[in-house]
Amino acid sequence: MTGWTLPQPMKRALELAEASAAAGEVPVGAVITRGGEVIAEAHNTPRDTCDPTAHAEILAIRRAAEALGQERLTDCELWVTLEPCAMCAGAIVHARLAKVYYGASDPKGGAVEHGARVFEQEQCLHKPEVYAGLGEARAAEMLREFFRERR
Amino acid sequence: MTGWTLPQPMKRALELAEASAAAGEVPVGAVITRGGEVIAEAHNTPRDTCDPTAHAEILAIRRAAEALGQERLTDCELWVTLEPCAMCAGAIVHARLAKVYYGASDPKGGAVEHGARVFEQEQCLHKPEVYAGLGEARAAEMLREFFRERR
Repeated sequence: MTGWTLPQPMKRALELAEASAAAGEVPVGAVITRGGEVIAEAHNTPRDTCDPTAHAEILAIRRAAEALGQERLTDCELWVTLEPCAMCAGAIVHARLAKVYYGASDPKGGAVEHGARVFEQEQCLHKPEVYAGLGEARAAEMLREFFRERR
Repeated sequence: MTGWTLPQPMKRALELAEASAAAGEVPVGAVITRGGEVIAEAHNTPRDTCDPTAHAEILAIRRAAEALGQERLTDCELWVTLEPCAMCAGAIVHARLAKVYYGASDPKGGAVEHGARVFEQEQCLHKPEVYAGLGEARAAEMLREFFRERR
């Protein structure tokens, strides 16, 4: 997908991923929208905040729920640069997010189209609509660069 | 398992689950120990704090990591009254918890011995030792009571 077709929230998520890398954190960014408006955004911060749960998605979900003063994000969309892991996919279910747009696939840690496939479990209480591949090339490139520099 | 054989951290987790129910939250309690010492504890608070990620395990993990000033809880044990869900199982992996003791099985939402079976995925980077059934009867009874009163 070329840059000019990329929806604004995914462009912003990519900017957040870039900020994450600059801060020494794995480059993943997330934005939550409702009715076209951004209500929360975040990038990974586990190292900086000593919090193993501080993935971009978890932080964005917590901030969106706080901003709306409600536990559920029923009519909201999540835009994230990387396929969510099991922890984040589980949080997406608990938050009842309507739609999830993600960039790069993650065969090693992803739990949407890989591994635990959280939304595909029979017991799964809420299955968001999922759209993969938006901004994939840039999201994957940032991750490769980040890990290459650290090896 | 009878009460007198129950390890102290699981007794405490059950007390926290009871406090959770009293506060109108799903009765789940969690304790994290290191070398026999309690370093963090929590019960569910999603309703009270408008945070869909505020499960007992997530809160206890965040508090333990903050208390130790490190992202990983490599030499720590988690004691929780209910089988962890996909979100919490994923967080346990990220935190590298050494051992997980849990009470009641959860066929509907659990992701250790049910559904997503997070620790059994080939891609899973860290598999904690898991011990199920400690304090199961009391943990399950509290959950049944809680949901019976709300139906």
